[in-house]
Amino acid sequence: MMKKIAFTWPQGFFADGIHAGLRKKKLDLGWLYSKEPASAAGVYTTNQFCAAPTALTKKVITANHQLQALIVNSAVANSCTGEQGQKDAKQEQVWVAEKLGISPKQVGVASTGVIGEFLPMDKLKAGIASLTLDKNTKLTEAILTTDTHPKTISFEFEQAGKKCIMTGFCKGSGMIHPNMATMLGFIVTDAKVDGDLLQELLSEQVETSFNQITVDGDTSTNDMVVTLANGAALKEGPSLVKKSADYQTFKQVYQAVLEYLAQEIARDGEGASKLVEVLVRGAASKRDANVVSKAVVGSNLVKAALFGQDANWGRIVSAIGQTDAKLAVDKLDITLNQIQVLKASQKTSYEEEIVKERLGQDKIVIEVDLHVGKKSGRAWGCDLTYKYVQINASYRS
Amino acid sequence: MMKKIAFTWPQGFFADGIHAGLRKKKLDLGWLYSKEPASAAGVYTTNQFCAAPTALTKKVITANHQLQALIVNSAVANSCTGEQGQKDAKQEQVWVAEKLGISPKQVGVASTGVIGEFLPMDKLKAGIASLTLDKNTKLTEAILTTDTHPKTISFEFEQAGKKCIMTGFCKGSGMIHPNMATMLGFIVTDAKVDGDLLQELLSEQVETSFNQITVDGDTSTNDMVVTLANGAALKEGPSLVKKSADYQTFKQVYQAVLEYLAQEIARDGEGASKLVEVLVRGAASKRDANVVSKAVVGSNLVKAALFGQDANWGRIVSAIGQTDAKLAVDKLDITLNQIQVLKASQKTSYEEEIVKERLGQDKIVIEVDLHVGKKSGRAWGCDLTYKYVQINASYRS
Repeated sequence: MMKKIAFTWPQGFFADGIHAGLRKKKLDLGWLYSKEPASAAGVYTTNQFCAAPTALTKKVITANHQLQALIVNSAVANSCTGEQGQKDAKQEQVWVAEKLGISPKQVGVASTGVIGEFLPMDKLKAGIASLTLDKNTKLTEAILTTDTHPKTISFEFEQAGKKCIMTGFCKGSGMIHPNMATMLGFIVTDAKVDGDLLQELLSEQVETSFNQITVDGDTSTNDMVVTLANGAALKEGPSLVKKSADYQTFKQVYQAVLEYLAQEIARDGEGASKLVEVLVRGAASKRDANVVSKAVVGSNLVKAALFGQDANWGRIVSAIGQTDAKLAVDKLDITLNQIQVLKASQKTSYEEEIVKERLGQDKIVIEVDLHVGKKSGRAWGCDLTYKYVQINASYRS
Repeated sequence: MMKKIAFTWPQGFFADGIHAGLRKKKLDLGWLYSKEPASAAGVYTTNQFCAAPTALTKKVITANHQLQALIVNSAVANSCTGEQGQKDAKQEQVWVAEKLGISPKQVGVASTGVIGEFLPMDKLKAGIASLTLDKNTKLTEAILTTDTHPKTISFEFEQAGKKCIMTGFCKGSGMIHPNMATMLGFIVTDAKVDGDLLQELLSEQVETSFNQITVDGDTSTNDMVVTLANGAALKEGPSLVKKSADYQTFKQVYQAVLEYLAQEIARDGEGASKLVEVLVRGAASKRDANVVSKAVVGSNLVKAALFGQDANWGRIVSAIGQTDAKLAVDKLDITLNQIQVLKASQKTSYEEEIVKERLGQDKIVIEVDLHVGKKSGRAWGCDLTYKYVQINASYRS
């Protein structure tokens, strides 16, 4: 049993966000605090130029999969900032720890914004001093950069007979704005799960959610997804284990939260006018299905065609053929918003005008059947529009 | 010694182009003929959905590296056309062979245009019947699709004391127009080179020329680069071998032709306003240098920034960090049209306005020094503009 509910912080979590002066007017600094140390799991950018805060948070979480607080700023990414950047991230950690009376090793740090600039430490110091233990939603705003709106979701479910909540929020619409790096995702729950299992679940499920979205193919230096589970709903109750009756429920809720947040980022991709979902079936392996779906959703040519409501299935064929997935070149089927345009690799007798009309919808579903196996996979993205070019060409002009 | 000269067909080559009715008005069919069988080499698309003509030409050339004629059409790609498409390509081969009185095995076939449509065989039959053994430049026009102009080059050089000519021409500005597939490149010379050596040279040199350009990252189903060497300048003289005094000259001319044509395609990329060249130095391997240069030139974010004349070196860093090339994260240097913006991975004190002005030039050179080795590599591309989106979104509307 899982139920989507209005945004709520799970038990024992506190959050706040403020305008610390890193941006002109918008909120730009926020934190999250759990009254008890929470189990923690994270996945981080694979970009070799990993930003200082991202590297620090990875180190802290990996050490013992536990965290009690997170400090997050927008505007400055603290990336490509050398040793000074590392010192600054650690200083943030110390200030937050001192104010909360916890160990710096219980504090994660995340930043998103311009690459190559140093953090204005005086503003951060003053900002951290003024953050409170509230339960407002300002943190979900303070982390935004080019996003058009906060992206949040809450689910209610049960673990060992107790009502639990899992809440997720994220930012990112591609690696996007000039030097405005980053996709950040945070999931918090009062369910009780040990850190190792939480990490295993996150690492597994991120593959079919956040790792299957693409806006412009770029991986920022600051990307991270972090999950905290503080067990506040269960108190002395048992931690979730794979044999628990509620294990499948927890997994389902977790996957739903990750998929929802991932899709929200794709939908809010810079300049996007449509959410694009690609479903691949009949693949020889799960990996092939994921690779093919992501290749289609990531093709500039496919994306521009969808913006123009053009049923260019030739571009989809081309994108699929460029992968190393196992294919039968005479067996490909392609369906665009429920109209089959390709059957056994040859054009069907579809009506161009009807497909064009269907492609005018807010959500485009491209279904591909490779007919070489039984595995399936999905990926999400958006169309390529004039606005994407405008946003990315003119930001600093 | 090599000298660039005005466009000329090398000795013993004939060519013509006509309007066969596949397109509304423009030339759409052409051929090339060598009075003697020529040594032949080719490289072909790696797309798993290889078009019928491309597969046929690959088969014919691979059999004994010899070819005497090539027939090329635009407008219809004869791709995703199943068995009928294969029959049609072979029929073209037969018609050309009959008219020229040669074996069909001496005839290559190339097509570019809409994917999924059958060739109008009646028009092709009539068209082939009307082609003549001329020496005009119409073939270089008949192969174009979205290109804004023909792309040609001729060099004069010597082999064994005889004056030789090498002429190249190509088409392509990305995989571009809705279903308008394809990059086609043809190089012809009256130098004398055996097929195996020619193939070895082409396969090697295409890696640092055609394989290092990108407009939109898409590889069409019809891509091919073919070279014919008919030896007409040398008559009974010796074929080129690696020990020949002229071997380095031939290699140099060949590389110059391939690089020129490749750059011309990048410069004429759909909607492009600038040619972008990326030079990578200090790489641990040649392969790393090529991968990094192509990653930078292929990033949508870098491309959009260059269109907007924005010195977004953070995006360049990000593109480099996403590769698997060996890097030293604190040693990266980046220079934009001769202004160093990053030194040892940190921002220099460049003047934003001066860099912006430099980025207004027609050609942008991005120099990257990885400082981890001694290898270098180059790649070419173009900026991402409103026009790219327009062309690719609205073609069939």
